Amino acid sequence: MSTKPIIVMKFGGSSVANIDRIKAVAQRVVNAKTSKTNVAVVVSALGDTTDELEAMAFQIMKEPPDREMDMLMSTGEQISCALLAIAIRALGREAISLTGAQVGIKTTKSHTKARIETIDNKRILKAFDAGQIVIVAGFQGVTEENDITTLGRGGSDLTAVALAKTLKAQVCEIYTDVNGIYTTDPRIETNAKKIKAITFDEMLEMASLGAQVMQARSIEVAKRFNIPIHVRSSFSKEEGTMIIKETDKLENIAVRGVTCNKSEAKITIDAVPDKPGVAAKIFTELATAGISVDTIVQNVSHTKHTDISFTVSKNDLSKAIAIAEKVAKKIQAGAVSSDKNIARVSIVGSGMRSHHGIAAQMFETLAKNKVNINMISTSEISISCIIDQKSTDKAVKALHSAFKLDTLS
Amino acid sequence: MSTKPIIVMKFGGSSVANIDRIKAVAQRVVNAKTSKTNVAVVVSALGDTTDELEAMAFQIMKEPPDREMDMLMSTGEQISCALLAIAIRALGREAISLTGAQVGIKTTKSHTKARIETIDNKRILKAFDAGQIVIVAGFQGVTEENDITTLGRGGSDLTAVALAKTLKAQVCEIYTDVNGIYTTDPRIETNAKKIKAITFDEMLEMASLGAQVMQARSIEVAKRFNIPIHVRSSFSKEEGTMIIKETDKLENIAVRGVTCNKSEAKITIDAVPDKPGVAAKIFTELATAGISVDTIVQNVSHTKHTDISFTVSKNDLSKAIAIAEKVAKKIQAGAVSSDKNIARVSIVGSGMRSHHGIAAQMFETLAKNKVNINMISTSEISISCIIDQKSTDKAVKALHSAFKLDTLS
Repeated sequence: MSTKPIIVMKFGGSSVANIDRIKAVAQRVVNAKTSKTNVAVVVSALGDTTDELEAMAFQIMKEPPDREMDMLMSTGEQISCALLAIAIRALGREAISLTGAQVGIKTTKSHTKARIETIDNKRILKAFDAGQIVIVAGFQGVTEENDITTLGRGGSDLTAVALAKTLKAQVCEIYTDVNGIYTTDPRIETNAKKIKAITFDEMLEMASLGAQVMQARSIEVAKRFNIPIHVRSSFSKEEGTMIIKETDKLENIAVRGVTCNKSEAKITIDAVPDKPGVAAKIFTELATAGISVDTIVQNVSHTKHTDISFTVSKNDLSKAIAIAEKVAKKIQAGAVSSDKNIARVSIVGSGMRSHHGIAAQMFETLAKNKVNINMISTSEISISCIIDQKSTDKAVKALHSAFKLDTLS
Repeated sequence: MSTKPIIVMKFGGSSVANIDRIKAVAQRVVNAKTSKTNVAVVVSALGDTTDELEAMAFQIMKEPPDREMDMLMSTGEQISCALLAIAIRALGREAISLTGAQVGIKTTKSHTKARIETIDNKRILKAFDAGQIVIVAGFQGVTEENDITTLGRGGSDLTAVALAKTLKAQVCEIYTDVNGIYTTDPRIETNAKKIKAITFDEMLEMASLGAQVMQARSIEVAKRFNIPIHVRSSFSKEEGTMIIKETDKLENIAVRGVTCNKSEAKITIDAVPDKPGVAAKIFTELATAGISVDTIVQNVSHTKHTDISFTVSKNDLSKAIAIAEKVAKKIQAGAVSSDKNIARVSIVGSGMRSHHGIAAQMFETLAKNKVNINMISTSEISISCIIDQKSTDKAVKALHSAFKLDTLS
């Protein structure tokens, strides 16, 4: 059995959008596969394949059965992994493509959002021993009954990280269309800097607060099994961002990044009777309806009544208002109002644990820039403020500069 | 275990070329699945999918590896069977799609032209017991190592027939874009009649002599296991042609059909020394080069030399001429000439065995119509004449009428 170090490389849909890009990926993979390393590659479906397949199904039926959708959608990755294997063979190197089923990626039965349970490494290690580069179809697996499943959004990242764990890979490289993780969205702040290294926890926090490079699920798995992730560009040789366990090597800075998120709306219920169990009623009803609530603020009560505000995803807003109004009536609360024009601006950094005064500095910075704070919520390594949506860019720039993120080397 | 009679229905690429046709096929399948029957459906890839996938591979590499081509091409049938299952569910009926691997269609390792070795019926019977219509991806299987294979041209027909055998189906229905098997090509003879029933042997003979509805391989399997095949149109409810074992029920007529084939060319070697083993030399060399020879005629020899003529596929002509010239030199024969402007016209019918004078009637008919006969070859149930290509239509019409095929009811 081969004991060479193993690298897992994952290429997203835009990296394999057409034949020329597939050839470029093949060249990149071939360069990585030296006599001293083994390489397993995970690919997503070609550019628009997923959308095209979905559109065909929806032309037939509004809510097609999940099992059949998985059967259909999984062909996208099967096509791209076969083509990449061909492109590598065209460069004169050995390669073999494998579906999720062929690798032995066993999942739960939850079609369209299955979870990986086990991965068999035998077939891949056998291919490594035969000197082959292994191309694995991302996003898919099979149940015990051999039914094809898919892993939901960001599924190919998950395949890559889980594979890296199974193969005891040195690193899991996630190739994408950006150069790495930035201190903030470069479309808002042109001085945003690429972060060299970030901890799993910081990345998780940034992902949940609006950074869109990787899905939280894959980072959680990487964190649990301590798989270093290298997020980098398919289109350049530049080093990207390492996502790693917290170590002494990581520069101990208070704030690693600034995120913003405009996908939430705020609901306020006025004059809620200030009695135990009343707030619970509202949030239980929302949870039962499958609506997840983010920040909750209950104003300090000077009377026997209090105002409760909370944020929900804009997608859930009308449903949430209806529920809030129903409950408000039942508990004899006042009016229900809502506000779509809000944004969440957050700062994230493990260093907050040891640095003091970060929250104060954030509030002062916003105040100095005349950004009004609506609501505040904090976690161990982040602070978020809900503000007026129109102030988003101003707030992001001000915070980015105040915490000296634009001076990172 | 369900003991209901089982029907296998197979739909080709043109029958599932677009969403509307898939819906029509779904309706047809749903009509066939009564409370008293179980239905397994085999589908080919959607219209142009196969060509599109192939084109992508060839853009990357001139001769892509067979294993990866099978991985790629097999997605076509996986897509169509998932879509058909969705379309059946849209009609409110239970359906499940299965890949070749999921059914358990085990094949040899000869990628792109694998042979089916065994089919497991467990998964399908389980689905039948659950009241489901089963949709199987045609054209594909897996090796013992779980590598995806494809079965080559006409592979979906083969899947259908083999499945019918495994399931002990009552009938295997092959849905296509024609109404059945005709007494001759209706594009040549507008009076061609649909044949109600034909024997496996007659159909095999007609397929090898130019009729293009079904590949010989599938008919051979059907014959071996005595699976009745019903060739019929996807676009009409009309009964098609039954391909069955020879029985007393089949009308005992001498000639069942007339075929023609313009894909061959003739090669003649003059003045071949009339010694034992000389002809063998020529045909051994051709066989070694993988060229298959059809009709061979050696003229009666009055001297110590003889002329040998034979036909080969036009695709192999230049290669065959080169070999013939090399051998002619070695055996001190005369010139090698060739003729592309030939056609094979054949009559086929099991009744020939018991009817006399059929050959004479064929030759007389051609003579009366001034069609010159170049070469003749016969089998137990067919007679073929090689004629000038420009006389093909005239010969076909004359024979069709002489053997009263236009008066079949």
